[in-house]
Amino acid sequence: MQEKAFQDFYPDEFSHCYGCGRLNEHGHKIKSVWDGEESVAFFTPDGRYMALPGFVYGGLIASLVDCHSTGTAAAAAYRKEGRPMDSEPALRFVTASLKVDFLAPTPMGKELELRGRVVEIKEKKVVVESRVLAGETLCAKGTVVAVRMPPGMMPK
Amino acid sequence: MQEKAFQDFYPDEFSHCYGCGRLNEHGHKIKSVWDGEESVAFFTPDGRYMALPGFVYGGLIASLVDCHSTGTAAAAAYRKEGRPMDSEPALRFVTASLKVDFLAPTPMGKELELRGRVVEIKEKKVVVESRVLAGETLCAKGTVVAVRMPPGMMPK
Repeated sequence: MQEKAFQDFYPDEFSHCYGCGRLNEHGHKIKSVWDGEESVAFFTPDGRYMALPGFVYGGLIASLVDCHSTGTAAAAAYRKEGRPMDSEPALRFVTASLKVDFLAPTPMGKELELRGRVVEIKEKKVVVESRVLAGETLCAKGTVVAVRMPPGMMPK
Repeated sequence: MQEKAFQDFYPDEFSHCYGCGRLNEHGHKIKSVWDGEESVAFFTPDGRYMALPGFVYGGLIASLVDCHSTGTAAAAAYRKEGRPMDSEPALRFVTASLKVDFLAPTPMGKELELRGRVVEIKEKKVVVESRVLAGETLCAKGTVVAVRMPPGMMPK
């Protein structure tokens, strides 16, 4: 996949997130792109992120849903304004709420596919629903309410 | 605190979870105990788990809520049966759903306090509400629906 990911457009000061920051050397560095009306990301968990031997830890699933969904929210906001993600003013989103339903145990060792869909988009709030699939198995469904970043969180 | 944590009672095969497994050398190893009717855990995030410089990553908050709440669910189930957590038969819980509301940015470098409360307890389902505090600031609230572990997830 040659396309630049949503997260690759984040400026350096927003690129330290453990879930999706390209500058966080310890983190997951997830990469999300559009696939038509859905956003998609692929991720193969490192074995240390287990719940039980053979199964992925729910906290990782929640993290992937969170970062994929907030990335999708930002991308959707730019898309709605008809401008690229590296244009000004910057549109940054943080998570107001995260809900994950774990539908099936997530097997370790398989590439996971995250697929996001914007279900509501307003100037200061975007709601994204994401699915986590391991092959044909729907392992989890998530809903993220993303809101424009409060000024107090903005890096100086 | 000298008391043995809920997670210290988990048998070895259930002690590999990235969030709470005492045998996962990479993980968070959270430790939860009763404090009257509430469960409590203290945790100081490592700096790599950041969202932005100065703030803790939401995926970690979700993970802490998840593991503290499932631990509380298991402890509550044993307590309801009036027997210690290392007695048979084993009562294991996994997360069916996790909801986290992020109420305030969580500052990095402070010890976080998690406090859980059982709001529903049935044989196969326990609902736990947890709060995440940084000092006096309520940073997040979570609700976990924990269910008895399905046989297919049980380690051989």
